[in-house]
Amino acid sequence: MHSIEHVPAQKMREFIERCLARLGLPRRDAGAVAELMTEADLQGADGHGIFRLPQYVRRIQAGAVNVRPNIHLERERSAMALVHGDNGMGHLVMKFAAHTAIAKARTAGSAWVGVKMSNHAGPASLYAKMAMREDMIGLYLAVGNANHLPPWGGLEMLLSTNPIAVAIPGGDEPPIVLDMAPTVAAYGKVKVRAQRGEMMPEGWMVDREGRPLTDPRRMAEGLLLPIGGYKGYGLALVFGLLAGTLNGAAMGRAVVDFNADDSSVTNTGHAIVALDISAFDEVDAFKARVDDIARQMRSAERMKGVERIWLPGEQSQAKHAQRLRDGVPLAPALRRALDELAAELGVESLG
Amino acid sequence: MHSIEHVPAQKMREFIERCLARLGLPRRDAGAVAELMTEADLQGADGHGIFRLPQYVRRIQAGAVNVRPNIHLERERSAMALVHGDNGMGHLVMKFAAHTAIAKARTAGSAWVGVKMSNHAGPASLYAKMAMREDMIGLYLAVGNANHLPPWGGLEMLLSTNPIAVAIPGGDEPPIVLDMAPTVAAYGKVKVRAQRGEMMPEGWMVDREGRPLTDPRRMAEGLLLPIGGYKGYGLALVFGLLAGTLNGAAMGRAVVDFNADDSSVTNTGHAIVALDISAFDEVDAFKARVDDIARQMRSAERMKGVERIWLPGEQSQAKHAQRLRDGVPLAPALRRALDELAAELGVESLG
Repeated sequence: MHSIEHVPAQKMREFIERCLARLGLPRRDAGAVAELMTEADLQGADGHGIFRLPQYVRRIQAGAVNVRPNIHLERERSAMALVHGDNGMGHLVMKFAAHTAIAKARTAGSAWVGVKMSNHAGPASLYAKMAMREDMIGLYLAVGNANHLPPWGGLEMLLSTNPIAVAIPGGDEPPIVLDMAPTVAAYGKVKVRAQRGEMMPEGWMVDREGRPLTDPRRMAEGLLLPIGGYKGYGLALVFGLLAGTLNGAAMGRAVVDFNADDSSVTNTGHAIVALDISAFDEVDAFKARVDDIARQMRSAERMKGVERIWLPGEQSQAKHAQRLRDGVPLAPALRRALDELAAELGVESLG
Repeated sequence: MHSIEHVPAQKMREFIERCLARLGLPRRDAGAVAELMTEADLQGADGHGIFRLPQYVRRIQAGAVNVRPNIHLERERSAMALVHGDNGMGHLVMKFAAHTAIAKARTAGSAWVGVKMSNHAGPASLYAKMAMREDMIGLYLAVGNANHLPPWGGLEMLLSTNPIAVAIPGGDEPPIVLDMAPTVAAYGKVKVRAQRGEMMPEGWMVDREGRPLTDPRRMAEGLLLPIGGYKGYGLALVFGLLAGTLNGAAMGRAVVDFNADDSSVTNTGHAIVALDISAFDEVDAFKARVDDIARQMRSAERMKGVERIWLPGEQSQAKHAQRLRDGVPLAPALRRALDELAAELGVESLG
């Protein structure tokens, strides 16, 4: 192992903001994106934070992303909205959509907000957690920005690693935050392995003959494997129909591979659902029940060799606390890419 | 193979109705449950239809299910409701809940209805499809009625095979109906194998040492495996929190194992979400997009040896048509159990 540099979150946030502002995003928008991207790194979503910055910059420079979007409601009822993202940065579009869902759920009890004409928005949990912080349950779905998954039995990659996130507040216990793709591994994890020069375990990908593929440098010729075989295919399909097709956003062959293509508009789709807990019960009573369930899971008898039973999101929270304290680890290759970016944009480097 | 008897759906429906009416359900309620149970058998959910009748009868006879429930709204807002099932048959409670969600979504655009004090309601897709028939998207979650899944790394079975169903209408193509448990196999499938005297494939269950368990007669000492390892554990947990804990219904250690216990009230929880497609777009335009996605999947290049790519729910629909024509196959052991039931209740047998 190389010794890995650790960068304070605040420095990271400021660097991202500088880069995006230089590209023409209003300072406030650049700051909002930077905050969410840094949050992704803090919680350990290494494939979704600053790692994506060079790609975002290339896409903005190529005119594929609108730096001054008019994000607005295209359709609306008391418990739904369709947000038109005007091809803005996905983080900004999704923040708007989550706030819309929260405001509507406050009155209606629940709200479902669909999104079209957005872009890659980082880890799914960011937006589910926005509802959670308002004592709501947040549920988020998205169409990923590159197809890596064929339908079950197929070879043509028609589906992305369409993720789901569900965020449920606890009381004394940490919240339960599930954030997962319906594939054994997310593509971002494959990319991180490739950048770090590490091999993948068997079961993440197969080649076109169905043989295990473990070298991430060969990822372009591989297929991701869905969880539970045909079940994970079904989840990816249905999440894509809900987050993409319902909203008039890209799905199937219309999905732009944003790893290979810097200049096409992606028309990314998302969906965010907010559920107002106080409509169902006293919020504290609900949180106490969530705590009880969390403790039941954690205290279950363990299989031999298992040191601890984790709740979804618990490891991210531990990582968040640790990284806030010690800084975010940056692989040398990523550090070099960010320094080159700073030089190219003529902004102060990460420091 | 024995030659398997095939029973016309109509006869099956009438038999179930006779049995339930004899036990004190109002004739109309008995008919409604019988129709949904028969529908389960028609669509191939063999572990969820008439197969469950002897168990339902035992539970009603033991006073564990209320045959004349006052199913009502305990809480309500414009886009949510909490249904109190008054311990009625789950099919009746869920039918009420689905109709409530549909009515609210018609105005609000979407609605989330939680359910408490219900019972086992058969296959998840039944209720998601109720919304679908109204040109809505239906999403259903439930807490299963027996814990068969430990948290990841654990041995104590604290989670059930909490299912999800999503039903999305197509235009010229059949609808897309996903109905799955976040385990590699549903427990009902294990029970059907046991009754048929068939072995299970490796990967469905493990014993307490983590070794593959393939003999369904040993199911009581086995643990079901979640799809994608910790991911399926996360899905089962989160679906249970949404369908159970949020509604004040059983979850975790409070779940009654209704296979071992005929007399305890289960306080089963469900959730049903209805999304009004017309709030998002012209319904026909949406359905045309769903058709396009279905055709993309079906026409994808296939792996060697794969004859056809299926859409979720397509095989159930094919089975439904075939069983409506040829009758529902009944294993000899199940046939004997139903004949004994008829004799015990003093009703006309299946014929």
